[in-house]
Amino acid sequence: MREFIHGAQAIARGAIRAGCDFFAGYPITPATEILLYMLRELPKVGGVAIQAEDEIASMGLCIGAALSGRRVLTATSGPGISLYSENIGLGIMGEVPMVIVDVQRMGPATGGATTVAQGDVQFLRWGTSGGYPVIVLAPTSLADCYSLTQRAFDLAERFRVPVFLATDKETVLSQSTVDVADFIDPPVRERRMASHEVKFIPYQMSAGEDVPPMTVYGSPHLLRFTTSTHDEHGHLTEKPEKVRALNQRLNAKIEDHLDEINLVNADLQPEAETLILSYGVTARAAVEAVRAGRQAGKLVSALTVYSLWPVPEEEIRKAMNGVRKVIVPELNLGQYRLEIERLAQGQVEVVGVNRVDGQLISPQDILVQGGVL
Amino acid sequence: MREFIHGAQAIARGAIRAGCDFFAGYPITPATEILLYMLRELPKVGGVAIQAEDEIASMGLCIGAALSGRRVLTATSGPGISLYSENIGLGIMGEVPMVIVDVQRMGPATGGATTVAQGDVQFLRWGTSGGYPVIVLAPTSLADCYSLTQRAFDLAERFRVPVFLATDKETVLSQSTVDVADFIDPPVRERRMASHEVKFIPYQMSAGEDVPPMTVYGSPHLLRFTTSTHDEHGHLTEKPEKVRALNQRLNAKIEDHLDEINLVNADLQPEAETLILSYGVTARAAVEAVRAGRQAGKLVSALTVYSLWPVPEEEIRKAMNGVRKVIVPELNLGQYRLEIERLAQGQVEVVGVNRVDGQLISPQDILVQGGVL
Amino acid sequence: MREFIHGAQAIARGAIRAGCDFFAGYPITPATEILLYMLRELPKVGGVAIQAEDEIASMGLCIGAALSGRRVLTATSGPGISLYSENIGLGIMGEVPMVIVDVQRMGPATGGATTVAQGDVQFLRWGTSGGYPVIVLAPTSLADCYSLTQRAFDLAERFRVPVFLATDKETVLSQSTVDVADFIDPPVRERRMASHEVKFIPYQMSAGEDVPPMTVYGSPHLLRFTTSTHDEHGHLTEKPEKVRALNQRLNAKIEDHLDEINLVNADLQPEAETLILSYGVTARAAVEAVRAGRQAGKLVSALTVYSLWPVPEEEIRKAMNGVRKVIVPELNLGQYRLEIERLAQGQVEVVGVNRVDGQLISPQDILVQGGVL
Amino acid sequence: MREFIHGAQAIARGAIRAGCDFFAGYPITPATEILLYMLRELPKVGGVAIQAEDEIASMGLCIGAALSGRRVLTATSGPGISLYSENIGLGIMGEVPMVIVDVQRMGPATGGATTVAQGDVQFLRWGTSGGYPVIVLAPTSLADCYSLTQRAFDLAERFRVPVFLATDKETVLSQSTVDVADFIDPPVRERRMASHEVKFIPYQMSAGEDVPPMTVYGSPHLLRFTTSTHDEHGHLTEKPEKVRALNQRLNAKIEDHLDEINLVNADLQPEAETLILSYGVTARAAVEAVRAGRQAGKLVSALTVYSLWPVPEEEIRKAMNGVRKVIVPELNLGQYRLEIERLAQGQVEVVGVNRVDGQLISPQDILVQGGVL
Repeated sequence: MREFIHGAQAIARGAIRAGCDFFAGYPITPATEILLYMLRELPKVGGVAIQAEDEIASMGLCIGAALSGRRVLTATSGPGISLYSENIGLGIMGEVPMVIVDVQRMGPATGGATTVAQGDVQFLRWGTSGGYPVIVLAPTSLADCYSLTQRAFDLAERFRVPVFLATDKETVLSQSTVDVADFIDPPVRERRMASHEVKFIPYQMSAGEDVPPMTVYGSPHLLRFTTSTHDEHGHLTEKPEKVRALNQRLNAKIEDHLDEINLVNADLQPEAETLILSYGVTARAAVEAVRAGRQAGKLVSALTVYSLWPVPEEEIRKAMNGVRKVIVPELNLGQYRLEIERLAQGQVEVVGVNRVDGQLISPQDILVQGGVL
Repeated sequence: MREFIHGAQAIARGAIRAGCDFFAGYPITPATEILLYMLRELPKVGGVAIQAEDEIASMGLCIGAALSGRRVLTATSGPGISLYSENIGLGIMGEVPMVIVDVQRMGPATGGATTVAQGDVQFLRWGTSGGYPVIVLAPTSLADCYSLTQRAFDLAERFRVPVFLATDKETVLSQSTVDVADFIDPPVRERRMASHEVKFIPYQMSAGEDVPPMTVYGSPHLLRFTTSTHDEHGHLTEKPEKVRALNQRLNAKIEDHLDEINLVNADLQPEAETLILSYGVTARAAVEAVRAGRQAGKLVSALTVYSLWPVPEEEIRKAMNGVRKVIVPELNLGQYRLEIERLAQGQVEVVGVNRVDGQLISPQDILVQGGVL
Repeated sequence: MREFIHGAQAIARGAIRAGCDFFAGYPITPATEILLYMLRELPKVGGVAIQAEDEIASMGLCIGAALSGRRVLTATSGPGISLYSENIGLGIMGEVPMVIVDVQRMGPATGGATTVAQGDVQFLRWGTSGGYPVIVLAPTSLADCYSLTQRAFDLAERFRVPVFLATDKETVLSQSTVDVADFIDPPVRERRMASHEVKFIPYQMSAGEDVPPMTVYGSPHLLRFTTSTHDEHGHLTEKPEKVRALNQRLNAKIEDHLDEINLVNADLQPEAETLILSYGVTARAAVEAVRAGRQAGKLVSALTVYSLWPVPEEEIRKAMNGVRKVIVPELNLGQYRLEIERLAQGQVEVVGVNRVDGQLISPQDILVQGGVL
Repeated sequence: MREFIHGAQAIARGAIRAGCDFFAGYPITPATEILLYMLRELPKVGGVAIQAEDEIASMGLCIGAALSGRRVLTATSGPGISLYSENIGLGIMGEVPMVIVDVQRMGPATGGATTVAQGDVQFLRWGTSGGYPVIVLAPTSLADCYSLTQRAFDLAERFRVPVFLATDKETVLSQSTVDVADFIDPPVRERRMASHEVKFIPYQMSAGEDVPPMTVYGSPHLLRFTTSTHDEHGHLTEKPEKVRALNQRLNAKIEDHLDEINLVNADLQPEAETLILSYGVTARAAVEAVRAGRQAGKLVSALTVYSLWPVPEEEIRKAMNGVRKVIVPELNLGQYRLEIERLAQGQVEVVGVNRVDGQLISPQDILVQGGVL
């Protein structure tokens, strides 16, 4: 069945198919469409959708709902991520599975409400104190909105961590005709719950586990939840060995499982001199640029990065291998390029193609400014 | 005159000597001492100090006061920076001179209130949407607290930008005996104000200017101030050329003046094989490690970075030149090390020495884990 | 069908039968049961029930919903009425039909959360600035809870005014077995809406009308709504004749229609020397006292007042006619007695029987302290 | 020395002369002038004046300051009294001495910001749950503003109760030339403090005391303060005898000391047929009306009521004694007239002269509508 939908719908539908049954948010262009869709549709499938009094309350509701057994989604734009910031830290500390959509608009501050941007790339990674890892996925298309939202829920459950969908005004508000039958629903990962048979210790793991199982408020278990550094019982502690163990685990549960998280699409050409590495809405232009470049007889490879954070270093190194130059087009002043420069290790020239005027980067921009044509 | 003071006092005194006449903040360990000092002392010099109802209000008051002609300071810890985040974006967009102290404690979330950390290094740089630059200074000692606070005010006025002092629980709450006579007060930079003689256009510059002059609310000038992308008149605009001009200027006013901002201390030894690069409280151990290493007959250089952001790339490259290895000790999982890896370009091995257990890194940790001894 | 229910349920059911399709409130003992019931039951009949972030938001939501065409209910206790106060004034000024339940507990302040009282009798009448009239109904029983809630909705629609249900912890939380078939549902009064055919002037009436018809936000009409003194167009005005006309109409629409509002139950005995005048939970003891008094050979009349405000003066004067003494039992220090003293005009002795210790007044209390026995 | 001042200044000066050293409030026309004066002048005498974030916070600050030993004032208008309502209940329950100025403007809701009214007369008495007494004083002139503010502080300390100054836009914002030397400062009543020698029981009294002595937070005493019904230790209780004792005492400490509170000015003429009873700004017209009436050969008495609540019943009855008619002019629909009707006991005709159009009542209005001329 062919339908004419926009990215907001794709995200919302993907979420519902991934078992999402709770949404709380506060309106902000260009994320409001997701809120409106969820307010209308989530109750129909037995879920709860709330427009809270502000963003701080929204994230509070999401965390509370997640701990009560819900699969939660929220959506906002850059200024809203700011207001989520403190509670995102709580989500990391408390290992709360949830999915947060950032529909990027031009910043800083309210910037341009209806102007496309990719300015939150580093912000999503580093936007709360302490610096512990989160996962960030970036859809390039309407179909990605659907599938990466599902993947975001999957990873949130797998690792008990906030997972971001870093998208943008253009991707979320543009409409396309899609064949809904093309949308494939992967199996929904069940939340791993602690058995009622055994004594529950909130942050204790059995042998072989890398993430502690959950329980819900209201279960026979006593669930301790604290914003502070804690031991496996959920008791606040400042004992160095307990503090270190917790903090290292928060990092390792992500960094040691890159194989489950990393997602890129590599269109590599043997002997290519140039690699175009892109993500999000800009990847669409990059794909076009590769096609046009090849038509013009150039040897050009492309790497589309879907999992921005943690940086899929191995996949990127592999794609850079042998090329002389990597072009990184971004709708910001060169944020992800910093990561590529770090990985290039002086072996590959890194060239940014950047716009911060609210316009999209064109394939021509990439080829000309990148020095391919 | 010798006095027994702590870092909080040094920061507060430095601020007052730099002309600070407004403070608003909300209590949070370990930053509360600064608030308390300002509440007591600022009125004595004709200033205003306010404990606001929360962090969001605190930053709102600071921005309003700055636009009314005040020199403003606020102080908090990581969770408070989260709550400042949206208004920091406004400070960047509106080009508001102000100084923000982050007394780092262990994160994420409330983490450890009285536990030292350096986990906000990337957060301070990237903690608001859009990704536009701020300035971050890191004191290593009580004397630095005094002098870098003054420098922070100087840079805030020079560039009309929020300037952070990235310090920590240990530096701010430890007491030392200092000879106050050693504190040298550099001249206070006067705020560059628009003449009342000419028509005021809020964001317009004359030839040769790189930052527009200011006015105050209540002056004969009409002062437009908006959180949105705007033209030189302060009118909201989405015209690509205006948007680009604004955004590029917000970046260029910092990036093009690194010579005025960069501040490091290089203790370089000819033929050194190893460079210890450090900042903040950890630099004290680094200095000790260099001394001990040299005593043990090792060739070791040291670079203390005071201006963390923008990264003083040239100074760092120069210090790395010729060494085989750079050791980066940090009280986090290796945040600033990412910048060093980027700059190393594969020519120098980068080794992190990291603790996240709430304990300080010792000189021995650096030498042993860094492979010097 | 016989059911075992409490007063909260009776109120909630009565509301739904009266067409209530919106509820917003904030939990407070002993009113929380009504909130919980509505949260569960209102969605089942297509209504919306919200636990808002506080009482101020609750009343804001109620007013907004009423102006959008909903029939709204809220429920709280004394401290919540305080927080409603400002918006109750807006409800009076903006002529917003709504029903507010006050489940009285012991005051002042939080007083006794689970302790019965009738201390808000004057508060409900005078609890907002300006002194314009509202309507207050007081149920004496579970059956009254059901029927007076319906009547409250009817009067709210009729007069576009906030109508209170002044009840108490005892009445709302006690359970009884009732025969639901005994609950008779009067016809639901349709809201009088302005025709879409004619130009809408928000506060203009046609000949013969005493209350202006309504419209809803979202209709073709332009609906102006202001908290300030306004003319018939809803434009703010300070013109004396317009101000007077508005204020007098707000009063007259209630005071000139006592025949539609007043509700008492008179059980008068010829030649009675004593009248027991009561309301609310205390009326149950009064009825018992009358029975006991008569059994003891005393000539005693009873008047139960259901419509506390406006004071049903004519009905009260008629009941007092000929008696020598009127006994007014109240769970406060004699609030409604002030009204009776005013009406007694020195012709009848007025005796209060009062308790403020959290205990109910007994029939014996009335008879003995009232000097009947 | 003659000065040209307005009522706001007279109130603020009177407060400072009465020892006021704390003010917190939020701006609202026509009370803002008092806030502004206090913000400027209170620090000069070592006091603290705060513009809080809203009215709820203002009252919270006032209560906290009072319990810390301060003499507190706040000022607002009708809508602000609504927001104070919950905390006024706390002030009654916790026996907090404080003075609250209500500069009445036209209600309900925001009504007319700059329009005079006397619509809060019953609201001030009954504006919080439970119905326990407060004291309300009404100045008629600039000189009264000065002296009654002092009296308000005196009574607040004497009875540990919130005392209102019921004034109005006209009285507070009109300017007159006064001879400041005429302002007589009565001795300032010292707060009765519990001795540090003896164990402190927060609500216990010695023989002969009718109000418990106070202590301050920070003293050696343990000060329990609760919003709930409590015993003499400040422990929450629901024991009927404790609850009754507390509630009766809250009432009796006011009602049993009318001799210390009641304040009227009687200008009685032997054989007078008519009494003009008035308060506040309207009393000025009443005085003129009496003079004009007498000039026209009428026998007219006047009673100006300064202490509105508790109602000075004895003084009013005495003034009504022998007259045939009492005229009660008010800038509302007849609120205080209800009290007079109650006291008249059918012996005296009570006639209201009322305006609610934002204009003052003239002497002529009183004489003509009152049927004197």
